[in-house]
Amino acid sequence: MSASTKHVNAVIGQSGGPTVVINQSLVGVVEGLQKVKSIGRILGAHHGVRGIVNDDFIDLTKVAKGRLSRVAVTPSSALRSSRDKPDEAYCQKILAAFERHRVRYFFYIGGNDSSDTCRIVNDLAKRAGYELAALHVPKTIDNDLKENDHTPGFPSAARFVACAFLGDNLDNAALPGVKINVVMGRHAGFLTAASVLARAHEGDGPHLIYVPELAFDVDKFIADVDRIYKEKGRCLIAVSEGIHDAQGTPIAAKLAEQVEKDAHGNVQLSGTGALGDFLAAEVKKRLGIKRVRADTFGYLQRSFPDCVSVVDRAEARKVGQVAASFAAKGVLEGSIAIKRKSNKPYKAGFELIPLTAVAAKTRVMPPELLLGDSDVSDKFREYLAPLVGKMPVAELL
Amino acid sequence: MSASTKHVNAVIGQSGGPTVVINQSLVGVVEGLQKVKSIGRILGAHHGVRGIVNDDFIDLTKVAKGRLSRVAVTPSSALRSSRDKPDEAYCQKILAAFERHRVRYFFYIGGNDSSDTCRIVNDLAKRAGYELAALHVPKTIDNDLKENDHTPGFPSAARFVACAFLGDNLDNAALPGVKINVVMGRHAGFLTAASVLARAHEGDGPHLIYVPELAFDVDKFIADVDRIYKEKGRCLIAVSEGIHDAQGTPIAAKLAEQVEKDAHGNVQLSGTGALGDFLAAEVKKRLGIKRVRADTFGYLQRSFPDCVSVVDRAEARKVGQVAASFAAKGVLEGSIAIKRKSNKPYKAGFELIPLTAVAAKTRVMPPELLLGDSDVSDKFREYLAPLVGKMPVAELL
Repeated sequence: MSASTKHVNAVIGQSGGPTVVINQSLVGVVEGLQKVKSIGRILGAHHGVRGIVNDDFIDLTKVAKGRLSRVAVTPSSALRSSRDKPDEAYCQKILAAFERHRVRYFFYIGGNDSSDTCRIVNDLAKRAGYELAALHVPKTIDNDLKENDHTPGFPSAARFVACAFLGDNLDNAALPGVKINVVMGRHAGFLTAASVLARAHEGDGPHLIYVPELAFDVDKFIADVDRIYKEKGRCLIAVSEGIHDAQGTPIAAKLAEQVEKDAHGNVQLSGTGALGDFLAAEVKKRLGIKRVRADTFGYLQRSFPDCVSVVDRAEARKVGQVAASFAAKGVLEGSIAIKRKSNKPYKAGFELIPLTAVAAKTRVMPPELLLGDSDVSDKFREYLAPLVGKMPVAELL
Repeated sequence: MSASTKHVNAVIGQSGGPTVVINQSLVGVVEGLQKVKSIGRILGAHHGVRGIVNDDFIDLTKVAKGRLSRVAVTPSSALRSSRDKPDEAYCQKILAAFERHRVRYFFYIGGNDSSDTCRIVNDLAKRAGYELAALHVPKTIDNDLKENDHTPGFPSAARFVACAFLGDNLDNAALPGVKINVVMGRHAGFLTAASVLARAHEGDGPHLIYVPELAFDVDKFIADVDRIYKEKGRCLIAVSEGIHDAQGTPIAAKLAEQVEKDAHGNVQLSGTGALGDFLAAEVKKRLGIKRVRADTFGYLQRSFPDCVSVVDRAEARKVGQVAASFAAKGVLEGSIAIKRKSNKPYKAGFELIPLTAVAAKTRVMPPELLLGDSDVSDKFREYLAPLVGKMPVAELL
């Protein structure tokens, strides 16, 4: 093929936990690269870095436009994902694959672990004298990337959480009791805090919001629930899966018989109802309340197709396009960050930041977004509202 | 007030588990009754029968049309709900309240327990020689009312389950492992079976579907998972919360430290992740698979506002209107049943059936809707598809 001998090629991969809009970013990168004449083939790596070392690619230049537009609205990672954390040997294999396929552009769509993978590959390429443009495209429902106003995937997951709490607050008002909902979030409480948008009227839940930014004390929790329940006859609670004691040990890890860790050293928190069930049992036992329930939102919140933020959908596409256009302009490394230009009306810009600004770093909620030890501030609500979009109606009689 | 002395009045209540469209039925009844000149006030009872005995009403004739249209699109029960099962003494109080308020029309929106409540009140009224029109308006996500093609609330909950599985199937394809999702359903597996609509392409999950219509055997389950996992490298499973052993004991009840029952004698199944966690632990232990996760959809599936079936929304409104029009025509008792007139194009009719046809009875999935012991038939898929509506796109690369 003349294209593969005359031109250089690009590789795109998706990594980490999927989101409902991560394929918008993938299609955004492809759209951006299609305008670049020097690029021959755009290779999609299946299962992130693993697809690169295993020569498991799909040639995206051969995928019809109609199919790509269907991919864009498909939830989760269309190229599949990976939790591999490449070490030196792994990265040598990646570079060998890049050389073999004449790859000069590498786009990695993911969160902070994924941006670190991007950084490691890029460092090794530089040391090897291999010319590579390594661009990280942000994605994480945790909203925990430094330098970003927010991250693609978060607004939609936040909409899911806010909608779930809106429905559940009404459910809890209909059949009163104590209800505990466990939301994803290892270190950052943004997603759990998003439950606040469910409050439409005075007295609405969530009445208590616990995020991992603050130490969680079970006795204090029980006292909080007791107070609210006595006052309102019901209590709706949002809890991050990552809540931990004053020593930093996750409550969930203390409950697990066997702690499971991924390649990045992260303890498994999702995919179990143990934390919610533990807290519900404590409330039943200590307060003698009969109707106590716990739900754990689990994986639903990151790939539910019927609940997508309009802003998120557009921005996720845009970060992909912007990453491609930076590469086309000759930029050799960096990550794309979303910066808020104005809140009313909402307007965002997209900037290039160094890979080291986000790689393996975690942003958490700053104190001004919290209120006391079990609520969030109006400032957080103002920050979140334009990202999530118009909330459903909640009109009781 | 002249209206209250010259006219008779109507009472509407909502009972049992909420749905995302139950307020459509409430507003449908109000709309239907507003055309009846002999009716003075339309009273909404807060918390079902409890509101009637406690004189806790809202006068719906005074609620503005705009507010009612907002109520219609609000998830969960706008009048709140109740799980009370009225005995003789309770019903005497209900009749006394009806007499006090000149109530001649009683509309109770709910499932099989609620239709039984309606029947008991009606029987007592008859015995007391009190003229009362007692109409049951169907509602239940379980889809387990006899004589009905399906019940309002089910299509939307089925859409939620199908959408959740569609996203989760892609999530599981992106990061392979064994994933168990527990779906609501005590005796009837319709809602769990709705997960089948997530299958868009060959190989898609759910790969195994377990409903309470058949006995659940843990050894057989493990063998099923082993077979699928070895074949596909992943396995997505739908399990009803109500699955039970060959003796009829729910697996969830065997796991609970303390079994909680409601006034209708129902054991608590929802609001805990114990069943999913138990099954996940068994898979890990017996098959040695590392990545095993369980999510329990819990209360989200019955009151999630962003995921409503278009057919369900319209039909839920219609059953309310039809119930009111039967009462206006002088019908004194009955329940409204949805009958399917044609499947392509989908068309339904609404008929009056005796209260005793639905009261305290449970419909389960007939054998022809099942396939083997861990799947559902194409006939079920054809039955379900028009109710759920167009599914989201799932296009992988």
